[in-house]
Amino acid sequence: MSNLRIGFGVDFHQLVEGRDFWLGGVLVPHEKGALGHSDADVLLHAICDAMLGAAALGDIGVHFPDTDQTYKNIDSKILLKRSMELIAEKGFSVVNMDATLCLQAPKIKPFVPQMQEVIAKLLELTTDEVSIKATTTEKLGFVGREEGVVAYATVLLEKQQSSVR
Amino acid sequence: MSNLRIGFGVDFHQLVEGRDFWLGGVLVPHEKGALGHSDADVLLHAICDAMLGAAALGDIGVHFPDTDQTYKNIDSKILLKRSMELIAEKGFSVVNMDATLCLQAPKIKPFVPQMQEVIAKLLELTTDEVSIKATTTEKLGFVGREEGVVAYATVLLEKQQSSVR
Amino acid sequence: MSNLRIGFGVDFHQLVEGRDFWLGGVLVPHEKGALGHSDADVLLHAICDAMLGAAALGDIGVHFPDTDQTYKNIDSKILLKRSMELIAEKGFSVVNMDATLCLQAPKIKPFVPQMQEVIAKLLELTTDEVSIKATTTEKLGFVGREEGVVAYATVLLEKQQSSVR
Repeated sequence: MSNLRIGFGVDFHQLVEGRDFWLGGVLVPHEKGALGHSDADVLLHAICDAMLGAAALGDIGVHFPDTDQTYKNIDSKILLKRSMELIAEKGFSVVNMDATLCLQAPKIKPFVPQMQEVIAKLLELTTDEVSIKATTTEKLGFVGREEGVVAYATVLLEKQQSSVR
Repeated sequence: MSNLRIGFGVDFHQLVEGRDFWLGGVLVPHEKGALGHSDADVLLHAICDAMLGAAALGDIGVHFPDTDQTYKNIDSKILLKRSMELIAEKGFSVVNMDATLCLQAPKIKPFVPQMQEVIAKLLELTTDEVSIKATTTEKLGFVGREEGVVAYATVLLEKQQSSVR
Repeated sequence: MSNLRIGFGVDFHQLVEGRDFWLGGVLVPHEKGALGHSDADVLLHAICDAMLGAAALGDIGVHFPDTDQTYKNIDSKILLKRSMELIAEKGFSVVNMDATLCLQAPKIKPFVPQMQEVIAKLLELTTDEVSIKATTTEKLGFVGREEGVVAYATVLLEKQQSSVR
């Protein structure tokens, strides 16, 4: 039986004026930001969900409910760190992570290396194992109308053979 | 050459009044249900498609066409069981499965353990290898307007080394 | 540490009259085609992105920018071939690929075997390791209104142990 596990996460947030726009742990200058209970970092949330899913640990809503004041405006890097601890407790580590941001604007390419650094450190990987891609939806749908942003993430986890569990 | 294969499935259904709402093999109380030729279980359909895709066996529309009266109102658990048989005939078993339901309402968290039990049994896994996550789309798009429901599923398959094929 | 990597890609294109409709490297007869700088082959683009993502090589927009006249109306099979070269330079080969096309019309089932042939050859796989699935969105959203088309692809890559890198 393979000691690998795969997971897939998707997250959605509305874009509104008057909010900071956090993406992949980096503050991206933009006239709008993502609306949410936490800092609404759609990319980090999708990654958390992919990791929790691969380890069958529930989802981000189960672990960090948006009805809990603890998580009000929280830095999503803390949620990603906690997700890492949760999978580590089950004996898992991350092999690689690949994410895609769907947003019409702004161009996030200049911020990708910084996002990779932030995420690689939290996932205990090299930046060579952390991929962040971006695409518009070619003006289609709510992403195309700049009403919202979507992120997808997929992860491969490996269970340590020496795990005591 | 690795004996692992990955697959990804996505399924969509309209939500309408006057239909039962089957999700993950469980009847979820709600004022609407998913419209479809079968019982329209969007979650099980996405899982079938991920499994068939990983084994390069076509898709759910190829194996269970919605023009075939055999599948009229059929319990999608039968389709998942048949998908398992199809991948097993090619020498594959499931390592783990991770799914995400996108729906605005209702909250499905109370039903997740039962869904995991149903699916784990059909996939010959433990519930620890079957993940079901849920998210709203934050009121965005047709899911946000409660006009429809989307499910994503990813699976990791392993080919038995002793397979004669 | 596992020598496997996973990747996931998604691509979107508008459907308009007066364009050829290229899908999976095959010209599909239809009254509309996908709009784009290249031949707008949404399926091949999603596969390129999944491969580049798994190898943490950026995305299709980084390697083949739509502001570059080199790629004006280019055959996307050339982009897929180049993506293969890019991952091979990092020591990776493809284990399997599973893709899903979301489009309301036309039925692409008759073209799937030809798409598998084209893609398998480019990815140096057998057609048994190349999966192409299709689904409508049940008339929901921009895909349901036939304004656009979406493709998802997931790939498993393997790093050659004998790689000199």
